Amino acid sequence: MSQQDLISVPPSITEPASFGFSPCEGGICAAMGIRAAGIHAGFRPDPNRKDMALVVADQTCTCAATFTTNRFCAAPVQVSRSRAASGHARAVILNSGNANASTGEPGVQVAKASTALVAQALGCDEEDVLVASTGVIGQQLPLGPYETGVPVAVERLDHSTDAAHDAARAVMTTDTVPKEVSLVGPVACGMDDDEVMVHVGGFVKGSGMIMPNMATMLCVLATDAPLTHEAAQAALSAAVSVTFNKVTVDSDTSTNDTCILLATGATGGNPIELGTDAYDVIAAAIRCACENLARKIAADGEGATKLVTVDVLGAANESDADTVARAIANSPLVKTAIFGHDANWGRIAGAAGKCGVAFDQYDVDIDFLGVPVLRAGLPLPMDEEDMLQRFESPEVTIAIDLGVGDSHARIWTCDLTHDYVTINGDYRT
Amino acid sequence: MSQQDLISVPPSITEPASFGFSPCEGGICAAMGIRAAGIHAGFRPDPNRKDMALVVADQTCTCAATFTTNRFCAAPVQVSRSRAASGHARAVILNSGNANASTGEPGVQVAKASTALVAQALGCDEEDVLVASTGVIGQQLPLGPYETGVPVAVERLDHSTDAAHDAARAVMTTDTVPKEVSLVGPVACGMDDDEVMVHVGGFVKGSGMIMPNMATMLCVLATDAPLTHEAAQAALSAAVSVTFNKVTVDSDTSTNDTCILLATGATGGNPIELGTDAYDVIAAAIRCACENLARKIAADGEGATKLVTVDVLGAANESDADTVARAIANSPLVKTAIFGHDANWGRIAGAAGKCGVAFDQYDVDIDFLGVPVLRAGLPLPMDEEDMLQRFESPEVTIAIDLGVGDSHARIWTCDLTHDYVTINGDYRT
Repeated sequence: MSQQDLISVPPSITEPASFGFSPCEGGICAAMGIRAAGIHAGFRPDPNRKDMALVVADQTCTCAATFTTNRFCAAPVQVSRSRAASGHARAVILNSGNANASTGEPGVQVAKASTALVAQALGCDEEDVLVASTGVIGQQLPLGPYETGVPVAVERLDHSTDAAHDAARAVMTTDTVPKEVSLVGPVACGMDDDEVMVHVGGFVKGSGMIMPNMATMLCVLATDAPLTHEAAQAALSAAVSVTFNKVTVDSDTSTNDTCILLATGATGGNPIELGTDAYDVIAAAIRCACENLARKIAADGEGATKLVTVDVLGAANESDADTVARAIANSPLVKTAIFGHDANWGRIAGAAGKCGVAFDQYDVDIDFLGVPVLRAGLPLPMDEEDMLQRFESPEVTIAIDLGVGDSHARIWTCDLTHDYVTINGDYRT
Repeated sequence: MSQQDLISVPPSITEPASFGFSPCEGGICAAMGIRAAGIHAGFRPDPNRKDMALVVADQTCTCAATFTTNRFCAAPVQVSRSRAASGHARAVILNSGNANASTGEPGVQVAKASTALVAQALGCDEEDVLVASTGVIGQQLPLGPYETGVPVAVERLDHSTDAAHDAARAVMTTDTVPKEVSLVGPVACGMDDDEVMVHVGGFVKGSGMIMPNMATMLCVLATDAPLTHEAAQAALSAAVSVTFNKVTVDSDTSTNDTCILLATGATGGNPIELGTDAYDVIAAAIRCACENLARKIAADGEGATKLVTVDVLGAANESDADTVARAIANSPLVKTAIFGHDANWGRIAGAAGKCGVAFDQYDVDIDFLGVPVLRAGLPLPMDEEDMLQRFESPEVTIAIDLGVGDSHARIWTCDLTHDYVTINGDYRT
């Protein structure tokens, strides 16, 4: 075993500030003023599989959102993007089984019609209903399941943990587990700046076609904090950029990425503006919630057996750090080696070197599985038995210091396995 | 079945000019003045597996070369890059089983010592011997196999097709077949500009860690044309940029990519300068040879069952076309769908849209397996039975017209299969 110290990863990366927020029950329904439902509406043939989720605020409230940057953006993204710009919303209707992408004007009409059905049932403005879809690309989405399903979903709307769980289940595609988070913590945002308990909850779906750029596959978050639109959007964008946008399963950015935050203000108190202490606390909680869900996406990557965290240190700037981290995280050779429990760190070096970022190979340090394996570009002796033992952990860590500057990036990914090939070799069949 | 016309791919892409060159016997030894050998020297434990190749010109001759741009460049790349800059060489010594990469100054010393042994046996200047290695990264390369192997290889040097074949076999790693090419054609480069028969031959190894950038894994080419150094380098660089640099198996650029051209001038005749008619003909033949080998790399990609050709048309510029083509060719979702015989063209659209290249999705056409599947961003009816039938072919074609401009790019790749995961899950063990 090597006597070398490990590469030092700053605590700002390993333990982002949480300001006293801690886990609680409730999923997205942890936020006061939020009800949810998840049902089988008929987008999928299997009647035992939920395929429609509905999230509703008790009244129209602040909303913020981020969407895919894929040029082939789906119909629901086009509809929701323009509506979310208003800064307020009442409900989000989601489906799995069909992405309503590459469906042209007919697809946009179905997306709008689905929101009209929700608006009618809730008695709100159609413009206050957002929509999101996930599933196969290039097939027209039928309206029928909305016509029969929306009234049922509205009937089942509930503030319970079970209802939140049903909604999280209903958006799953190749996900093997529902992915939810809920946090609670004190924030000085009451009427006289006294502390009130604020909740942040949410769910996400995402397992394949995952390298979000602006948002991940489908995510709905809610808080009961009275955030202004500006504050909600700033907190969401900041959180997404360092969490969902740092996950890659297979480098394939989805056509449907959507992340929506509803802020009900059900805690009461004064509106929380950007730049206040209360904003900082709630933004940190939203970031914690997003990081929790982002790690769950990577851990549940299609076919994955490992959650892999890649830290790049010592880069000239953040962009270089991100490029090198993604090159490693997306390398099929690195990912298959991890699947095969092969401590083949040469592939990490190869991936770092291929991506056009300037560094001197003789300045580079690499740690793999918590063991120093390369220092100043030269290999250290490695105990293969010890490395095999370390591969038994469900998490794999990679750290590389480029020795150029002070910037860093962290990316989460997973291994590349036979199951990934199996899942994606016959996804439509 | 659709009545739409297929996207038109210009003949300059589908049939590059060959100027009357046609296939012949001989591999790299087709070039007059070239001898080769391939032996088991002991880099690999299996005595039945060749692991050392030697290519020698009868006398010191013109050489050109291109190398990896990976920042972690291997010791043999460092040695050969500086030596090839002289424009002349006598021999190339190659090994498989160990890449001599991430081996620091000791690795450079072994690479130089190996060339000294060759120089001693041939009675030439050590600076005229180039070196290339392929195999595992991060392990010191022993000199022993060179000490015993070089005299044997020199003894076996021969101008025969079998000798060329032995050399091609000796550099194989996960390659399942040796990859060779030899072409012959008339060129007006004799003493009085009369036609002489010119040969271009070569071999390449490459199957995984393949997304060359400046050259592919290991390739040695030879011609008996009397090219000047300037002409040889120009012809090689031009050919590599549209052939080896357009292949991707797994997006992982190797640390050891090396492509060397020896021009013996054994045909006699005047030196062939850049800008002459004879140069154009030989440059086209070198390009044909490189394209032949490049396609063989893609077809023999690790675990591959299909050779996939991706054509991007109608791009604003060549860089955009290349970016979109690589996004498609490197998409694990596209590659696994092809493995699974799933005509899931939505993933092609998704990959094209994710890579930051600007286009309007409603201007895009896509052909898949020779069938129009998307026109102006909208899906056409698809006969799934017919598509399944078309997947029986060993080649898969993808064409996408972005509808922006007139630039195009062609990239070769392969599918992503269980065997890729198996091969790379236990490469070192």
